[in-house]
Amino acid sequence: MSMKLPTRAENYSSWYNELVKRAELAQHSATKGSMVIKPYGFSIWESMQSDLDRRFKETGHVNAYFPLLIPKSFLSKEADHVEGFAMECAVVTHHRLMPDPEGGVMVDPEAKLEEEYIIRPTSETIIWNTYRDWIQSYRDLPLLINQWCNVMRWELRTRLFLRTSEFLWQEGHTAHATKAEAEEETLKILDIYADFAENFLGIPVIKGLKPEHEKFPGAVDTYCIEALMQDGKALQAGTSHFLGQNFAKAFDVTFLGKDNRSEFVWATSWGVSTRLVGALIMAHSDDSGLILPPSVAPIQVVIIPLGNKPEEKERVMNAAAKLRLNLKEKGIRVKLDDDDNRRPGWKFAQYELQGVPLRVVIGPRDLDRDLLEITRRDTKEKSSMPLNGAPENIKSLLEKVQESIYRKAKDFRTQNSHSADTYEEFKQIIHEKGGFVYSHWDGTTETAEKIKEETKATIRCIPLDDNAEEGRCIYSGKPSPRRVVFAKAY
Amino acid sequence: MSMKLPTRAENYSSWYNELVKRAELAQHSATKGSMVIKPYGFSIWESMQSDLDRRFKETGHVNAYFPLLIPKSFLSKEADHVEGFAMECAVVTHHRLMPDPEGGVMVDPEAKLEEEYIIRPTSETIIWNTYRDWIQSYRDLPLLINQWCNVMRWELRTRLFLRTSEFLWQEGHTAHATKAEAEEETLKILDIYADFAENFLGIPVIKGLKPEHEKFPGAVDTYCIEALMQDGKALQAGTSHFLGQNFAKAFDVTFLGKDNRSEFVWATSWGVSTRLVGALIMAHSDDSGLILPPSVAPIQVVIIPLGNKPEEKERVMNAAAKLRLNLKEKGIRVKLDDDDNRRPGWKFAQYELQGVPLRVVIGPRDLDRDLLEITRRDTKEKSSMPLNGAPENIKSLLEKVQESIYRKAKDFRTQNSHSADTYEEFKQIIHEKGGFVYSHWDGTTETAEKIKEETKATIRCIPLDDNAEEGRCIYSGKPSPRRVVFAKAY
Repeated sequence: MSMKLPTRAENYSSWYNELVKRAELAQHSATKGSMVIKPYGFSIWESMQSDLDRRFKETGHVNAYFPLLIPKSFLSKEADHVEGFAMECAVVTHHRLMPDPEGGVMVDPEAKLEEEYIIRPTSETIIWNTYRDWIQSYRDLPLLINQWCNVMRWELRTRLFLRTSEFLWQEGHTAHATKAEAEEETLKILDIYADFAENFLGIPVIKGLKPEHEKFPGAVDTYCIEALMQDGKALQAGTSHFLGQNFAKAFDVTFLGKDNRSEFVWATSWGVSTRLVGALIMAHSDDSGLILPPSVAPIQVVIIPLGNKPEEKERVMNAAAKLRLNLKEKGIRVKLDDDDNRRPGWKFAQYELQGVPLRVVIGPRDLDRDLLEITRRDTKEKSSMPLNGAPENIKSLLEKVQESIYRKAKDFRTQNSHSADTYEEFKQIIHEKGGFVYSHWDGTTETAEKIKEETKATIRCIPLDDNAEEGRCIYSGKPSPRRVVFAKAY
Repeated sequence: MSMKLPTRAENYSSWYNELVKRAELAQHSATKGSMVIKPYGFSIWESMQSDLDRRFKETGHVNAYFPLLIPKSFLSKEADHVEGFAMECAVVTHHRLMPDPEGGVMVDPEAKLEEEYIIRPTSETIIWNTYRDWIQSYRDLPLLINQWCNVMRWELRTRLFLRTSEFLWQEGHTAHATKAEAEEETLKILDIYADFAENFLGIPVIKGLKPEHEKFPGAVDTYCIEALMQDGKALQAGTSHFLGQNFAKAFDVTFLGKDNRSEFVWATSWGVSTRLVGALIMAHSDDSGLILPPSVAPIQVVIIPLGNKPEEKERVMNAAAKLRLNLKEKGIRVKLDDDDNRRPGWKFAQYELQGVPLRVVIGPRDLDRDLLEITRRDTKEKSSMPLNGAPENIKSLLEKVQESIYRKAKDFRTQNSHSADTYEEFKQIIHEKGGFVYSHWDGTTETAEKIKEETKATIRCIPLDDNAEEGRCIYSGKPSPRRVVFAKAY
């Protein structure tokens, strides 16, 4: 732990990469473009999964599992979908290896598949092909199904958690009898994602609609939540798609309505992925290491006992063990680190790096006064706390930390959200300050693409808030019904 | 629901297939050899996952995630391993599709991979290649890691849950400083599996060691739990492997011991899969449908209100809603089915088919006497129960059902376990009765293979119990240190 992290100001990108590595969250693997998610990183993902899964189930969704491999021909049944994904598909062409005369194994040419399979980049096609069997009448609707799984979109330039060929996610796929109901579901999920991002991950997000050219391939409307990272770049943290009847038409999924008329089924799909772990890191952490909201922290409180003399040690250890037990009983994830082979200073640095929200130190002198020393990871504030009542006070401090991390990220976003009314001003903000820029846009893909070409900023979303204020496009001067959010993005 | 299931006696195999289909557990998919796990079936798997995951974590294991794709060359680093899996590997050879001039998409020949990847059939190779970076000294050991994921072993003849190309499982991969510690881990996990099978799934199992020729490819010792299905065939329900230093040697994973000497790391691996859902069905269910132990039942209690007149209806519904709430508060998974479009008879058959452990009927006449009618799925026993105190009594009845399902399966196993001291007797039992046959074997692969050829019975395991009793091999007459367990198997 002697080597310090690069600072965010020096090199944000190295800071991120080094932090992911040193905090033991993930690493690159021998499989090009794929990562290994290490236990500490995976535990964060497990917390996210568990909270999201509960939210999905509370709103009537159930889990299922569909095949990893999709017949190649399925992809081309929906025109936009195939265009969006064909270029990044891993293709399975054979089902057997054989001994290679030159040593090792080789692909057995006799075991070539009649039709190749692709590894799912997303599962709309195989799922809607299955829904055809499941849906006959309006009585079979809605279907509210989610799956937790791995997907693959081939990438050459990867970044841990943010962009890898294989990633883990959940994908919801729902089927409805009416357009209105499918649209309602799309927005209900968007709200779940936003609430989860803000209250569980402590990341404030803007809910909005993607412009036409940034839509999911095959969607009618794509909604998203957009978060701001500390380097002023945006990150799309989740998407919810209203698919209209596109996939129902592609896979011929119809239902008989109450009126006995046959109609195509209405659809939504929605997902968040392990990318959120990257968002979490980049939204909160500092130059000393991770800052984790207590909700997702694998260890919420670490207790470090001090004292070298044997008689001191016993007293301290008794107090530490008792506190650990009391915290555990309150459902707090607590670790008592009594490893004698590591010095306290090493431990402090390590838990700081790993983002443990609260560090409790129990030493003989404090103990004489029935006190412990507690340090918040987010603010680094150190204070004394009476041992008496400590479990309750630690529990409320954790809640305070959770709230405070969110507040800080929200303040950061406020400070880094700007309005620009001219293209000059827009370019200046994008280049010098970064952050979210609210500007008018004429609604055309052409203008959006020119702005992107010239500034690298993209339209993150057309926000769903009520601040519709007319104006003129910063680029073309044509009329615009409301400002949209621009930013450079991950 | 008018069509009855085939009976087990008529055709066990059709009974199983039809039951999986009608109870909406799973179905075949458009991807040859892969299944779709439907929500009801997946919910059973989720219960299993959650209980096993808790057991793993309580014994110090953590979860992580390793890549789906494994470089082809990794497979051949361990000689037995490649021999065991090369013939059933799905191979990824390309990473892009392109428009096909004849319509649709085709594999882009320009996007051929330099080295092909296989889809993991199991992850020892990629994991031990990663462990090389993680392990330097004895301080880094043990590593106690598990992953929940999908794997693929190409199959042409498939059966839902029991044998499919893709399946879901957990695979534990641990690394240890000593042989003794790795062996202890192997057996600790075997105990966890056995306890889980018996106390959670209600399936009695025999713990044992696989004979040499039935070992996992790459293992030194393979331990297993073997269960007996109602057709007298055995099913391997979980395996735990002591891998010795085989994978450490193949991937050059060494550690510096306390004595400052470098040594290869000792390993275990262990797994159970969605196959357990198949085992669960075949161990307990009957000709009317599923019988599920309450532990895994997605719905543990269904409440069906009766009564047609409006004034009756309200009273009945109030009582039903109150009971539902009370059961829910006790942590019981309860469903109140007040769908007026279905007749009670239809509902009874449906919940019977789906194996809901307890059916509660509340009707106006019973209500006059403050009673409800409760029916056990496992025994079909119907009885009256006072409304007063019903939540507590239902909770204990669920425990009784859980115990009773296990007891019944255990009695079945006792009745279908035989000893055979001559080959004639052995063949007769195998052909006429089935079940587990305890016989002496000379310990050679040759004899085991001849017996298999002639009778289709295989050695399921060399049991770990204390009943070692010397004798002579039923086939060769050579001496044998103890009886082993034979059976026809899935």
